[in-house]
Amino acid sequence: MITSDSPISSVIHEYRDAVFEKDVDAFIALYETNARVFDMWGTWVYPSADAWRESVNGWFSSLGAEQVMVDFEDVRTIEDQDLAMIHAFVTYSEVSAGTGSRAMVNRLTWALRRTEGGWKIVHEHTSAPVDFKSAKVILHRKS
Amino acid sequence: MITSDSPISSVIHEYRDAVFEKDVDAFIALYETNARVFDMWGTWVYPSADAWRESVNGWFSSLGAEQVMVDFEDVRTIEDQDLAMIHAFVTYSEVSAGTGSRAMVNRLTWALRRTEGGWKIVHEHTSAPVDFKSAKVILHRKS
Repeated sequence: MITSDSPISSVIHEYRDAVFEKDVDAFIALYETNARVFDMWGTWVYPSADAWRESVNGWFSSLGAEQVMVDFEDVRTIEDQDLAMIHAFVTYSEVSAGTGSRAMVNRLTWALRRTEGGWKIVHEHTSAPVDFKSAKVILHRKS
Repeated sequence: MITSDSPISSVIHEYRDAVFEKDVDAFIALYETNARVFDMWGTWVYPSADAWRESVNGWFSSLGAEQVMVDFEDVRTIEDQDLAMIHAFVTYSEVSAGTGSRAMVNRLTWALRRTEGGWKIVHEHTSAPVDFKSAKVILHRKS
């Protein structure tokens, strides 16, 4: 386990800031060039940071004047020599929509690799569970 | 990157065998006691191997006379000192149902920790992408 001021935690902060600022460059700088992303929506795999950038660009553009707050909860981290893991519940809330009315929870897993430029995301997996009967995704987490 | 005869790969083989044999004990032995599982179906989180065992038990029991073949594709592995990662596409096919008619593809991420008893899964995340418009899960991967 690591402390909250670990270099790994800075990835969480930078991710949060990049989403809030809708800064695609800062966002993509968190990923390794050959990162493989399993995103929750529509697409099986983004095989590179370049492919992922296009999708993130589309997301940020679609927000218009709205901004998205990102909250990490129940964060677990494992740090080894050159490889680290983060898994957590992440809430994305659209700020202009008031308290939680347009919030969505994801389960997020990151694998990070230590590089000369700091820890970089080499793999991301986000999802929410699927209701077995309806095959529909469940977007709100009951606590 | 690691070779296919790495100790990590043995987790894949043992997982495949345990599912085919519907052997809950062998299956759960692959996980650390405090493993946290983000499974695709119905539930946000299984916070321990014990909780996960109940769910797996239910899955195996529901199969009746059928058996499930598991295939790992596009496997990527990263191995560090005491931590390793596997991410892949996994196809679950019910054997008695003929070729692929009841097959389902998942995206799978594992974090593994080196223990005295070999590599153990400390975190699992499975999912399939969700169609943005219908909010329904997509279970077949177009290649």
